[in-house]
Amino acid sequence: MLRQALLHNEHEPVDNDGFRLRGLGFSRLDAFSDVVFGFALTLLVVSLEVPKNYEELHHLWYGFVPFGISFLLLMLVWYGHYTFFRRFGTHDAGTVWLNGLLLFVILFYVYPLKFLFLSAFGQSEVVMAGDNMREVVLLFAAGLATIYFLFSALYANAYRQRDKLALTPLERMLTRNFIVEEAGTGFVGVLVCLLAAVVPPNRAGMTCLLFMVIGVWKSVMGRRSGR
Amino acid sequence: MLRQALLHNEHEPVDNDGFRLRGLGFSRLDAFSDVVFGFALTLLVVSLEVPKNYEELHHLWYGFVPFGISFLLLMLVWYGHYTFFRRFGTHDAGTVWLNGLLLFVILFYVYPLKFLFLSAFGQSEVVMAGDNMREVVLLFAAGLATIYFLFSALYANAYRQRDKLALTPLERMLTRNFIVEEAGTGFVGVLVCLLAAVVPPNRAGMTCLLFMVIGVWKSVMGRRSGR
Amino acid sequence: MLRQALLHNEHEPVDNDGFRLRGLGFSRLDAFSDVVFGFALTLLVVSLEVPKNYEELHHLWYGFVPFGISFLLLMLVWYGHYTFFRRFGTHDAGTVWLNGLLLFVILFYVYPLKFLFLSAFGQSEVVMAGDNMREVVLLFAAGLATIYFLFSALYANAYRQRDKLALTPLERMLTRNFIVEEAGTGFVGVLVCLLAAVVPPNRAGMTCLLFMVIGVWKSVMGRRSGR
Amino acid sequence: MLRQALLHNEHEPVDNDGFRLRGLGFSRLDAFSDVVFGFALTLLVVSLEVPKNYEELHHLWYGFVPFGISFLLLMLVWYGHYTFFRRFGTHDAGTVWLNGLLLFVILFYVYPLKFLFLSAFGQSEVVMAGDNMREVVLLFAAGLATIYFLFSALYANAYRQRDKLALTPLERMLTRNFIVEEAGTGFVGVLVCLLAAVVPPNRAGMTCLLFMVIGVWKSVMGRRSGR
Repeated sequence: MLRQALLHNEHEPVDNDGFRLRGLGFSRLDAFSDVVFGFALTLLVVSLEVPKNYEELHHLWYGFVPFGISFLLLMLVWYGHYTFFRRFGTHDAGTVWLNGLLLFVILFYVYPLKFLFLSAFGQSEVVMAGDNMREVVLLFAAGLATIYFLFSALYANAYRQRDKLALTPLERMLTRNFIVEEAGTGFVGVLVCLLAAVVPPNRAGMTCLLFMVIGVWKSVMGRRSGR
Repeated sequence: MLRQALLHNEHEPVDNDGFRLRGLGFSRLDAFSDVVFGFALTLLVVSLEVPKNYEELHHLWYGFVPFGISFLLLMLVWYGHYTFFRRFGTHDAGTVWLNGLLLFVILFYVYPLKFLFLSAFGQSEVVMAGDNMREVVLLFAAGLATIYFLFSALYANAYRQRDKLALTPLERMLTRNFIVEEAGTGFVGVLVCLLAAVVPPNRAGMTCLLFMVIGVWKSVMGRRSGR
Repeated sequence: MLRQALLHNEHEPVDNDGFRLRGLGFSRLDAFSDVVFGFALTLLVVSLEVPKNYEELHHLWYGFVPFGISFLLLMLVWYGHYTFFRRFGTHDAGTVWLNGLLLFVILFYVYPLKFLFLSAFGQSEVVMAGDNMREVVLLFAAGLATIYFLFSALYANAYRQRDKLALTPLERMLTRNFIVEEAGTGFVGVLVCLLAAVVPPNRAGMTCLLFMVIGVWKSVMGRRSGR
Repeated sequence: MLRQALLHNEHEPVDNDGFRLRGLGFSRLDAFSDVVFGFALTLLVVSLEVPKNYEELHHLWYGFVPFGISFLLLMLVWYGHYTFFRRFGTHDAGTVWLNGLLLFVILFYVYPLKFLFLSAFGQSEVVMAGDNMREVVLLFAAGLATIYFLFSALYANAYRQRDKLALTPLERMLTRNFIVEEAGTGFVGVLVCLLAAVVPPNRAGMTCLLFMVIGVWKSVMGRRSGR
């Protein structure tokens, strides 16, 4: 009957990939990270002050799309974090510190991200062009690379403990794939950085098209993992 | 004896409607959402700065009623969220993303809501009249509609998984009713939007009377669900 | 062995008063409330801006004692909240809404509390005297009364469900005592309000001495409860 | 099979030191503390306002190293907190109040810490020299001393309940060592304070070299504890 209960709700011990979910309990690492994620999301969307007149209220509305995109990107990072900790539930010192580093990068990027998308959608007095455009692209691509390399390192750290975690052969294969998948995504960020640094400044924005490679890469790796 | 414990405290597996409570455990989706809800509630009530003199302290008091109403509205949304996740405890990708969208809308509305009620109670230098009144009504009704449509979608997403969740015939009926009830509430918001858009601007405020239909609708649906 | 584990750590099913702890699990109501409490505490202590020079850094230090007292008062409220929910673990609609009201009052009082203690310790340009002193006393005493009446109502709401919660005769007696104890504390707040309203403004501050009655009252009630 | 599960994931009942982990469940004290820690970390990193132009964006970048160091220091305190509560899981009144005091000190230090490292790395218009340098060293050393004395007191409070917690002889020895280790670390803070107060102001900064003693002390104590 307990097993029945486990089958009937979300708490299935295996996810769609065939990964056993070792971290379904709620831990302090989860709590701590979720407070930071929740704050970051709130700060992305909520402006500093309550609008004082209709003009400021309209201004707030113009932010709908840029805030929406920043929110979506941060939710994707949260989802990656959520997925990792559900799968492994590791709480060793390595996980704690890699997680701390990840939270630091996220917090550090909240306002640049908001700035970036507000500018990109013309909701700021700043014009993105020439050298500034190059800088913004470098900033964004470096942040993306760092976050995905950290995810890759988290998976590698879990793989290092594969015997202690009693990973099945399938899980070992999937974990290796995740290490490569996340690192590859990070590598696309590095490529965008390099390219943005060498092309003429006014072309720097175009290097962002390279981010589309991430979609291709993820679908290739997804097929390898049997998704 | 375990059963005894379950009967004696809050952790009863069935709520008043006859719905089994599949999501009584505390999950990361709950944690994450509660941080955002808690932050939103705090921002609704807490002003930006500590009052510096008695005049500012008085000003803070004038906000008691408008803050109270905004707080109540947000608590109603939290209660709907709490009820849904207690009933289903779903954590599939659909739930995660619909929930993310809901949180985004809530965060986006925190300050407009505060602005709206501060203006409505004359606690702001802004006069609500004519076109501005129309805009405020549209804003509020659109937010309400979005939130209730998202709740309806969450219930529909749970219903889609009715076999996996092993919903009983009673629960299936109740879930269908919830889908309709929430969507209907959202639909009242749409009606208010449409009406506010066509009536003369200085009558826009009156269209809010239509919100009273929600009370009627909820009591009709409640009777259908045997509440 | 489970019993052994229960005896060896904090998770004893009975507290010092002889109350079984029905709410040891972590619920969403706890999470939600703790986010609000955590925010309120942070806002009490953290100033709006990072000090920019040594003068501002010194200014921050002057706040040590007033912030400490506000922090202590809020921690006392948290402890009362924590104790209540550990004892009963109720999550009925009544508890949810009384709890919501309590959180609203707490959030509403964060900045007035900070203002009050900063002024009382001369860390603000505001002089507390005459009518202003009266107002501040009324504000503080009314907040205290509201919070303790809400605690009393929470205990009364739990008592109403005494059969469903299977309270033992000892627990019923203790719960009745808690209802009276918290209401009595709230009543002292009301008395201070009344007295502050009738005495000459420049004596309003002295009515705060009446708060010492709370200590006497709590020790009387504590003896009745066998503490 | 349950035991198997316990062995295979993080939820091992014993940590590397040989300490049984009594506090693996998620409690309200953890939740409450993590909200405060999460808030403190966020405030350390996130500036008050979204950058409005490229100059402000650059300014934000200059904070990378100082924010990183403050973040690391706070994470170390969190890790100490996390470790303590995993080991003992105590929730007695003594633990609650010592923990409250710890949170107060942390919140009180968030902005001075940010100020200190921004100044130290020249990211502020403030010059640290002479008397100001002395003050900053005193401030920092006093905060460090307070935090570690509080940790020592938390361990001492757990040791006081050694019979109730059923500490094994090994755990008793380890707990005594922790009391000494944390107190010793706090004592280094006191030494730095005393030294900074007597040396000529322009040498005050040098007294910070004494903090390196902490590393030696921790490794000595670690060896005694068999780490």
